[in-house]
Amino acid sequence: MSGNTLGLLFTVTSFGESHGAGIGCVVDGCPPGMDLSVEDIQAELDRRKPGTSRHVTQRKEPDTVEILSGIYEGKTTGTPIALLIRNQDQRSQDYGKIVETFRPGHADYTYWHKYGIRDPRGGGRSSARETAVRVAAGAIAKKWLREKYGIEIRGYMSQLGEIAIPFKSWDDVSGNAFFAPNAEIVPQLEDYMDAVRKERDSVGAQITVVAENVPVGLGEPVYDRLDAEIAYAMMNINAVKGVEIGAGFESIAQKGSVHCDELTPTGFASNHAGGILGGISTGQDIVVNLAVKPTSSIAQERHSIDKEGNPVLMATTGRHDPCVGIRATPIAEAMLALVLIDHALRHRAQCGDVKVDTPRIPAKRI
Amino acid sequence: MSGNTLGLLFTVTSFGESHGAGIGCVVDGCPPGMDLSVEDIQAELDRRKPGTSRHVTQRKEPDTVEILSGIYEGKTTGTPIALLIRNQDQRSQDYGKIVETFRPGHADYTYWHKYGIRDPRGGGRSSARETAVRVAAGAIAKKWLREKYGIEIRGYMSQLGEIAIPFKSWDDVSGNAFFAPNAEIVPQLEDYMDAVRKERDSVGAQITVVAENVPVGLGEPVYDRLDAEIAYAMMNINAVKGVEIGAGFESIAQKGSVHCDELTPTGFASNHAGGILGGISTGQDIVVNLAVKPTSSIAQERHSIDKEGNPVLMATTGRHDPCVGIRATPIAEAMLALVLIDHALRHRAQCGDVKVDTPRIPAKRI
Amino acid sequence: MSGNTLGLLFTVTSFGESHGAGIGCVVDGCPPGMDLSVEDIQAELDRRKPGTSRHVTQRKEPDTVEILSGIYEGKTTGTPIALLIRNQDQRSQDYGKIVETFRPGHADYTYWHKYGIRDPRGGGRSSARETAVRVAAGAIAKKWLREKYGIEIRGYMSQLGEIAIPFKSWDDVSGNAFFAPNAEIVPQLEDYMDAVRKERDSVGAQITVVAENVPVGLGEPVYDRLDAEIAYAMMNINAVKGVEIGAGFESIAQKGSVHCDELTPTGFASNHAGGILGGISTGQDIVVNLAVKPTSSIAQERHSIDKEGNPVLMATTGRHDPCVGIRATPIAEAMLALVLIDHALRHRAQCGDVKVDTPRIPAKRI
Amino acid sequence: MSGNTLGLLFTVTSFGESHGAGIGCVVDGCPPGMDLSVEDIQAELDRRKPGTSRHVTQRKEPDTVEILSGIYEGKTTGTPIALLIRNQDQRSQDYGKIVETFRPGHADYTYWHKYGIRDPRGGGRSSARETAVRVAAGAIAKKWLREKYGIEIRGYMSQLGEIAIPFKSWDDVSGNAFFAPNAEIVPQLEDYMDAVRKERDSVGAQITVVAENVPVGLGEPVYDRLDAEIAYAMMNINAVKGVEIGAGFESIAQKGSVHCDELTPTGFASNHAGGILGGISTGQDIVVNLAVKPTSSIAQERHSIDKEGNPVLMATTGRHDPCVGIRATPIAEAMLALVLIDHALRHRAQCGDVKVDTPRIPAKRI
Repeated sequence: MSGNTLGLLFTVTSFGESHGAGIGCVVDGCPPGMDLSVEDIQAELDRRKPGTSRHVTQRKEPDTVEILSGIYEGKTTGTPIALLIRNQDQRSQDYGKIVETFRPGHADYTYWHKYGIRDPRGGGRSSARETAVRVAAGAIAKKWLREKYGIEIRGYMSQLGEIAIPFKSWDDVSGNAFFAPNAEIVPQLEDYMDAVRKERDSVGAQITVVAENVPVGLGEPVYDRLDAEIAYAMMNINAVKGVEIGAGFESIAQKGSVHCDELTPTGFASNHAGGILGGISTGQDIVVNLAVKPTSSIAQERHSIDKEGNPVLMATTGRHDPCVGIRATPIAEAMLALVLIDHALRHRAQCGDVKVDTPRIPAKRI
Repeated sequence: MSGNTLGLLFTVTSFGESHGAGIGCVVDGCPPGMDLSVEDIQAELDRRKPGTSRHVTQRKEPDTVEILSGIYEGKTTGTPIALLIRNQDQRSQDYGKIVETFRPGHADYTYWHKYGIRDPRGGGRSSARETAVRVAAGAIAKKWLREKYGIEIRGYMSQLGEIAIPFKSWDDVSGNAFFAPNAEIVPQLEDYMDAVRKERDSVGAQITVVAENVPVGLGEPVYDRLDAEIAYAMMNINAVKGVEIGAGFESIAQKGSVHCDELTPTGFASNHAGGILGGISTGQDIVVNLAVKPTSSIAQERHSIDKEGNPVLMATTGRHDPCVGIRATPIAEAMLALVLIDHALRHRAQCGDVKVDTPRIPAKRI
Repeated sequence: MSGNTLGLLFTVTSFGESHGAGIGCVVDGCPPGMDLSVEDIQAELDRRKPGTSRHVTQRKEPDTVEILSGIYEGKTTGTPIALLIRNQDQRSQDYGKIVETFRPGHADYTYWHKYGIRDPRGGGRSSARETAVRVAAGAIAKKWLREKYGIEIRGYMSQLGEIAIPFKSWDDVSGNAFFAPNAEIVPQLEDYMDAVRKERDSVGAQITVVAENVPVGLGEPVYDRLDAEIAYAMMNINAVKGVEIGAGFESIAQKGSVHCDELTPTGFASNHAGGILGGISTGQDIVVNLAVKPTSSIAQERHSIDKEGNPVLMATTGRHDPCVGIRATPIAEAMLALVLIDHALRHRAQCGDVKVDTPRIPAKRI
Repeated sequence: MSGNTLGLLFTVTSFGESHGAGIGCVVDGCPPGMDLSVEDIQAELDRRKPGTSRHVTQRKEPDTVEILSGIYEGKTTGTPIALLIRNQDQRSQDYGKIVETFRPGHADYTYWHKYGIRDPRGGGRSSARETAVRVAAGAIAKKWLREKYGIEIRGYMSQLGEIAIPFKSWDDVSGNAFFAPNAEIVPQLEDYMDAVRKERDSVGAQITVVAENVPVGLGEPVYDRLDAEIAYAMMNINAVKGVEIGAGFESIAQKGSVHCDELTPTGFASNHAGGILGGISTGQDIVVNLAVKPTSSIAQERHSIDKEGNPVLMATTGRHDPCVGIRATPIAEAMLALVLIDHALRHRAQCGDVKVDTPRIPAKRI
């Protein structure tokens, strides 16, 4: 297992390169008997696909998914669901010049030293194109979690570069290219991105993901804590450099009397824990923040070296996202869904099905 | 596997409760032929053990480790190394009053709902006492990494509550109870902690861990990225609420032209990546920050509920660390060592042994 | 994971050497809330322990088990159950002469070449002494399977050397040292073993294990078939050289019209399948046969070589079982129980709990 | 992981149904830098494909494989190799009548009870068609083992129904439809199969697989013994009911003085062990026998029941192999290759690369 399988019981085994025949995955462990159509998956893929606004890469990929197995008469059968997305818009010529050199900030240097060989076409396996298969697999997980437990997983951009984005409403998220939960701030974000592009630069972002209606009891206690698995899943997303749960890094400067969420007969009084205590879900909202670094591919000239160690100057002129965080929201949602379904199944294995009458103690957001 | 085994090839299977017979683990996959003595392990355990200063819990646990298997004539044999630490200072009476109630901020509530039963003595399995076995297992990993590759793993406290601790010297770290890399600031830290204890409160901290001399090429590319595995390992430490690699959350507001580390024939020009690109080690220092929340057990009265949902007021008067971050440094080092050895072995499996002549490109710290 | 952990969801991680401090294991994944005492486990260990008749090794090991964790007030808590059996009767001097030579038929040669080091005391890790921990872990599995589903797992010796042992009654099994299901044949078995010992030789045996009341539906369909997992578990027992399910090797010469079990409204008409079709349990009895090779340690002189490749003549004069098959029955039962509980939990994870009203179609034994 | 992934480090994740869009797999963990072409894989697939003689199913499947990922300029890159075989000859009408009834001897009954839903078209996921993907993945494993260590894996039919097939020469194996290692006996086999088909019946077979030039030291010592992993792999092949290593079931009646292979300075004196001692390869030939049951699908009328439990009479008139053992040889070879490569990589991880100067002690065949 060379790191291309995610999960223990609901597993996603991913394959494919940016400019090869296609990308895809095998989803194993999906419970049988759930309605599942191509449309269920395509709808999530369309939220992530490139070329939908001037703020993202202009590569034209319809990201059309084919279900190769695991479905009979519109229902999951409990056997592996294989998904295939053929690549369409491969312009390998864009990448010709980087075969012999290492793009700074990219995986070129590390892949070369690890494997002694690398597919340079569009970053090959290290391309963020691979995240489409997570979104596809996550669509299946999301559907099951919603139908079985009423769990709702949603994300939004909470910061773009230096601009914090105050949460206003979930309704605003789908109305703009940034997944910003605040329609009023969108013109400011657009101007900001236009300026970044004009400078031939890129910028980072923060994404927040929330899972609501999670039953109490998901997560293992010592090494596969729910928060640890979430941190693992999120840090596995290309360009993510930090993860926090609940109060996160703010808890460093907090006192115990402030951080620690009191319980009352009608619910938790706060949610600094972010919905997880002792590695196990509390029934409160699970709240996760991710730091996404700025795209390493920029059109400014940068110092680097070639395979022989000679200095080179290189600018990346292909089609790239000036802020990879802009398309990261559906990916982060998918990763959270994949962690939650895996732990829902693990919980069933050891402790039996989640009791429907377990209290879900409401809590204020932080 | 209910979450008590860490790693794929160098595995640690942990057991034990805070106030049961003892705690311990089975380490499987250690390469054969390495010198290993009780002293190698005990030295690390002594760095973490309780009762060594007034700023930590006064529970008296010598944390004496016994090696039950896997060693023959002072050398590892390649078979499982079982470690046992008997508990000595179990004052279960300290915990009697919490059997029927849920301590806020603790795992009591979640364990109860998950399992329908919990061992309330000292937090049972959810106690941070379990981290001793990670330190013990980590000692084995650290030794192998040092002897095989010259990897050095060290950590320090970089913030205590609101007090940032500027890095001055590794030499200062072992000279104070806080693992502070700056002897001058220690009196200030002591006064701060004395004040926190007087207020019957607790406080958070930030720990920084660094691995030096890591070969290029460790880490898997898509789902078991080295940074993802590190995030998983760190978030598995009790009380950790956030993890960042390299520039971490600062990268949100950075431009690509700033964040992206340029390569030169004599090395990387910076290390915002924190030593990992595309999930694989670059040969630079690996730099990780953790946010540790304030201890939930405080002597102030707090609102909570009992098993029947009735409101109660409870203060925790047992022996507790007023800042769990103070003893977290050796644990974080151990976790990083466990991730690195696992990936060193995984790398050997797929790609053969790390080439000794692979360049380790030096880099400035961020 | 260097092969010392068994199972996916109900895992047994084993440690220990024949003449080291002790042997033991960590059982992870046991469902919470089950009554479990030392006696439950000791009763099974006593069935396997050495020194109980003249037909087995005279090593005196009480095999007293200590439960180190995972139990609170007599019930499993869902956390790891660690078991420890201290070694008592270590006569390392018995083994002194074999440090430099390879006992033929033993793992000495292969361990030496694999690890470059081996613990020669009593075979070290390769000793069948390790099977005690499987019996201990299996006792937990057996208890859960019995209480939850009414599954009963029992075994017997079906052949000793050239003597086939016709099944007469389960009641006879516990009344003799051989686990023979036929009291009448026991004197013949005793005479046969006395003769084998007098010849300073050893002999093989066949063990049959049966699981009754297994629900329909346990097992995975393609690679973790229930029969494949059983074959794996049984072949992992020291000295086992063959495994068959149901008709086994007899099915080679059978016609489809004979082998294939017909279904009727009142049950299967036969059980050539041995209770498994398509890798999944049918509800019929699961029937497994194992071939156990003769003990390699015999007191006759045998040709071998030393570490330098020089020829040596060696006879093994320590305390050994003249037929390792005699004590294999409880081990085989334990292994079958460990496979079944793991698949019972896996079934719960993906498909929910086994339906209690699922028909268990009765079937004739083959 | 619902049982569709094989292996720990060289993993095969399989998908697909007999009459769905296609079958395929993701191979993860293949070492980088090996030449690999479609032809390498297709050559093995052609040995297994249906329709090549009158003694096998007449379904026309070219089994053309497409490599979707993991190859760059003709070499493996260390990233996942996805393989896809589209189904061509789906005659679902052949299977229409079995939707409501359970074919005796098939997985229909068990799938239905396990999942509550099943794909009845050609057996769906339980069809032996899935074994094509193992042959494809096994081709990659075989090639690496041959190029890296000179390991050669070959199999043959050693018994057809009641006819034992004495081994004469490896050269004969490829010259007949049965993989019989004895050209003289082929006319007898053909007559036998013609008679079986005329009786509208089926028959079992025994397959023998041999691996030569295996280095000493592959296999884990306690639970992932090489023989246990082989038993698991072989029993995972559809219709296999028994597995034996070396002397296998013959060892029951053997004395230790006969069974136990003596070592001499020039090699082992015999190979009753079948090339494995203590779960680890000895360097001798690994010898494995499998019992393959007769095909359950026969054209004679058989008693069965429908979903409601009503009695039915059913004959299976589709296109079926009258002896599934005939096409089993390439599958068994593939499974052995997949086990060996996984353990070769596991050995590298813990113990470093196999030493090239390790003696491979020759041995007589049994």
